[in-house]
Amino acid sequence: MTDTGQETRRRRRRGAETVEKPQRSTDYRVLKNPFTPHEALPPERIAGMHETALRVLEELGMRVLLPDARRRYREAGAIVDEDTMMVRIGRDIVTEALATAPSAFRLRAPSPRRDLPMETGTLTFKAGAGSPNCADLVEGRRPGRLKDFENFIRLSQSFDVIHALAPCVEAQDVPIQSRHYAMTRAQLALSDKTPFVYARGTAQVLDGFEMIRLAKGLSEEEFRAEPHCTTVINTNSPRVIDIPMAQGIIDFAEAGQMATITPFCLAGAMAPITVTGALVLQHAEALAGIVLAQITRPGAPVVYGSFSSGVDMRSGSPSFGTPEHVQSAMIAGQLARYIDLPWRAGGGSAAPCADAQAANETQMALWGSVMGGCTLLIHAAGWMEGGLVTSFEKFITDLEPLQTIAELCTPPASDDAALGFDAIAEVQPGGHFFSAAHTMERYRTAFYEPLVADWSNHGQWMASGGLTATERATSVWQQVLADFTPPPPLPGMDAVDAFIERREKEGGAQVVD
Amino acid sequence: MTDTGQETRRRRRRGAETVEKPQRSTDYRVLKNPFTPHEALPPERIAGMHETALRVLEELGMRVLLPDARRRYREAGAIVDEDTMMVRIGRDIVTEALATAPSAFRLRAPSPRRDLPMETGTLTFKAGAGSPNCADLVEGRRPGRLKDFENFIRLSQSFDVIHALAPCVEAQDVPIQSRHYAMTRAQLALSDKTPFVYARGTAQVLDGFEMIRLAKGLSEEEFRAEPHCTTVINTNSPRVIDIPMAQGIIDFAEAGQMATITPFCLAGAMAPITVTGALVLQHAEALAGIVLAQITRPGAPVVYGSFSSGVDMRSGSPSFGTPEHVQSAMIAGQLARYIDLPWRAGGGSAAPCADAQAANETQMALWGSVMGGCTLLIHAAGWMEGGLVTSFEKFITDLEPLQTIAELCTPPASDDAALGFDAIAEVQPGGHFFSAAHTMERYRTAFYEPLVADWSNHGQWMASGGLTATERATSVWQQVLADFTPPPPLPGMDAVDAFIERREKEGGAQVVD
Repeated sequence: MTDTGQETRRRRRRGAETVEKPQRSTDYRVLKNPFTPHEALPPERIAGMHETALRVLEELGMRVLLPDARRRYREAGAIVDEDTMMVRIGRDIVTEALATAPSAFRLRAPSPRRDLPMETGTLTFKAGAGSPNCADLVEGRRPGRLKDFENFIRLSQSFDVIHALAPCVEAQDVPIQSRHYAMTRAQLALSDKTPFVYARGTAQVLDGFEMIRLAKGLSEEEFRAEPHCTTVINTNSPRVIDIPMAQGIIDFAEAGQMATITPFCLAGAMAPITVTGALVLQHAEALAGIVLAQITRPGAPVVYGSFSSGVDMRSGSPSFGTPEHVQSAMIAGQLARYIDLPWRAGGGSAAPCADAQAANETQMALWGSVMGGCTLLIHAAGWMEGGLVTSFEKFITDLEPLQTIAELCTPPASDDAALGFDAIAEVQPGGHFFSAAHTMERYRTAFYEPLVADWSNHGQWMASGGLTATERATSVWQQVLADFTPPPPLPGMDAVDAFIERREKEGGAQVVD
Repeated sequence: MTDTGQETRRRRRRGAETVEKPQRSTDYRVLKNPFTPHEALPPERIAGMHETALRVLEELGMRVLLPDARRRYREAGAIVDEDTMMVRIGRDIVTEALATAPSAFRLRAPSPRRDLPMETGTLTFKAGAGSPNCADLVEGRRPGRLKDFENFIRLSQSFDVIHALAPCVEAQDVPIQSRHYAMTRAQLALSDKTPFVYARGTAQVLDGFEMIRLAKGLSEEEFRAEPHCTTVINTNSPRVIDIPMAQGIIDFAEAGQMATITPFCLAGAMAPITVTGALVLQHAEALAGIVLAQITRPGAPVVYGSFSSGVDMRSGSPSFGTPEHVQSAMIAGQLARYIDLPWRAGGGSAAPCADAQAANETQMALWGSVMGGCTLLIHAAGWMEGGLVTSFEKFITDLEPLQTIAELCTPPASDDAALGFDAIAEVQPGGHFFSAAHTMERYRTAFYEPLVADWSNHGQWMASGGLTATERATSVWQQVLADFTPPPPLPGMDAVDAFIERREKEGGAQVVD
């Protein structure tokens, strides 16, 4: 919850109770990862993986479908075969690109209080993204609508532990040429966190940039000077960069906006079946995308993205939160640090419903990402069915481990007063500390307040309906939406609306496939 | 599952499928923790906590209810007030005890293949323990019976990732003076893993020792030379060691058997409300117990136990898997390493049913324990309602993250063949790796095989009943029990039965409260 909202909400939910509640303030806005990143492989093997990825780019190359992208690679010195569209990229080009790609930058938000440092050591979370469908226990599983998209923005805005916005669900009820107006407008109107723009062709991308620029009242130069939005570029593994993705890299780099280059390398399907083999391919593809960004505009803010996991070898279904996923994440983190770039990890679950499996997979992926030292974790809340669905209830239940990790970013007090010798002396052997002065001074703020966890005893739990956490989560998201107040309007929202009106009259902007 | 059993079971469960299954062998028997323990507090604060705990023992003392224990403390140099039963223990006595307590020892099992190194760096798991009740989706929530106890032993035996036995549920249908015969016999007959003996008075403890000695065909000397069973000693926080606990420490130390000294310090209830204050009290109480063991028999195998967490300040209910629990675990690990002893952490959940909350809490506690560098984690599977219930379904769903952690103990292959350059070269851009030679050579064994996770798509999942993981877990434990074959009988089981018969005729052994 926001640092002011949680108390209000909980007081309402438990309104019947008369016991005074703890009044705890939290600050989850900029988290510093307390854990030293895990070295799943020794450094020389990471170097060996990087070296093998360079061989993939030099000797095998990437198929790049966009002519303008091939031209840029060629001008940078790559060997391009126009017939096969294959681009072979020498290691000198990669080295130069890595030298200009910033290892740290500030991601700007509509509210400066939501600005995020994108650098190793910072920990930021985004909700589940890109799902065609959504689900809740009220309306069931369904294709996403604009209303659902907006509600996920409201939920994302309402919890500080969700640091920036993600396209949680596709607004399928809005025509494709107009959808990006609705999605971008909703993000700007309902949240003060950094918006997301899909790379679905230059026209849509530039529309998104313009709306954000207008809303914030920035000049073109001001907008281009810092990243004000993010996108994700997925290569088509193995070794293809398609037209919208290549165009997206170019468009975002030219405008100085943040692009995360994320190959989606499922081991055994689109990538070698070994964890390290899939990561070699991922690394090569990510490097190819980073090169395109840097030759387009040296210094363009890019994030090294990874989302490698395994598949069920019977069905080909992706799996998440498995040992292979966790190991892939931790080694991807090593690769990102090897090339000194911020790293985006991917969480989520492949569970068919919001249950114990879904919770276990999402939390396991969370820990793999945290222990891997990610800068940004996406799909951190709500994502299930391998991304086919974002669930309102799972969004809520997944916030609990995210908030727990956020709490772990602050070490507990260990000054002499905290160590409590006097309190221990005050309480007789076999006594209790409930009324000790040490307790009374601290009980309002001592403990994390759970969002959805229920610690009541069996009788109380049965008397209150015997609901699972997922069932209880329904009333949590409903209450958050009922209580929702949008942030103060941005100065240029009228200009945004005028822009949308004009562009809609012009027919909107077609998606480029 | 055991390293031979998982494949058999899964083939049966999915008997209708014709697709050839991967044939993967795993070895989860002795796990080396791959993670460097996390330093939640700087070393000087750990030293400060140890110092404060020494002050608690020196200046405030412990109330020790057993006269023989007070006599032993007094003879070791402690200041004892017989009227108040207060024992004040000087730091020299603590230092001497820590010098004789072994930092590493081998915990013997009925089968040598189940022997466990008890030392920092090893990772061992036990199931949820000590619950008065159990639950499953067939018979519901109920007081534990011997049948349930035996079934949990069978389940514990069936999965290698459960390393030693725990008293998962109380066999309430067996009279208290006979219960330990039935519980010890069941462990010896149904499992080749190290059994657990409750410290409920000398008569019961010695009965347990004798049964284990007889079953294994050991002489008295052989039995006393190494630990063949374990117990848990809970101090009565704050600062009381009651009669059965003090007697248990003495009995186990005299016989050279493993005692884990675990204060149960709920911050704000039986301990100071601060994480570090609760741990100071825990540390003092654990040290007092360790001293009693070492003055009874220098070198007696003891484990530093911790189980500190917070409480719901409205209801007083304990909480688990919270930030406070995780921080307590990680700092307890630092304290254990400070005094160079193996460390027992406690997992579990306070959830009222086996749902997403229960999964999240148990996994969060698991990661706190793993990142804290625990040697032994108890309550790792099945524990809910803060220990009032051990659930058969949750036992199964909790095994998935445990097996995932076990898989993480082995780094992925990173030799040149694993890096897969040739496979990447073989597959054309945009192609797939399903039929690549690199894949065909490895697909049977490449990936972890889930125990209960379902990765099928929505239609398939609905067609197979639309069950949650918890609901699916019912058929998993039922199948494991149906397939169960006990290990080969121990040589002395006839002698055990003769012993039980004789002791039962004598009236059994009363519990000491």
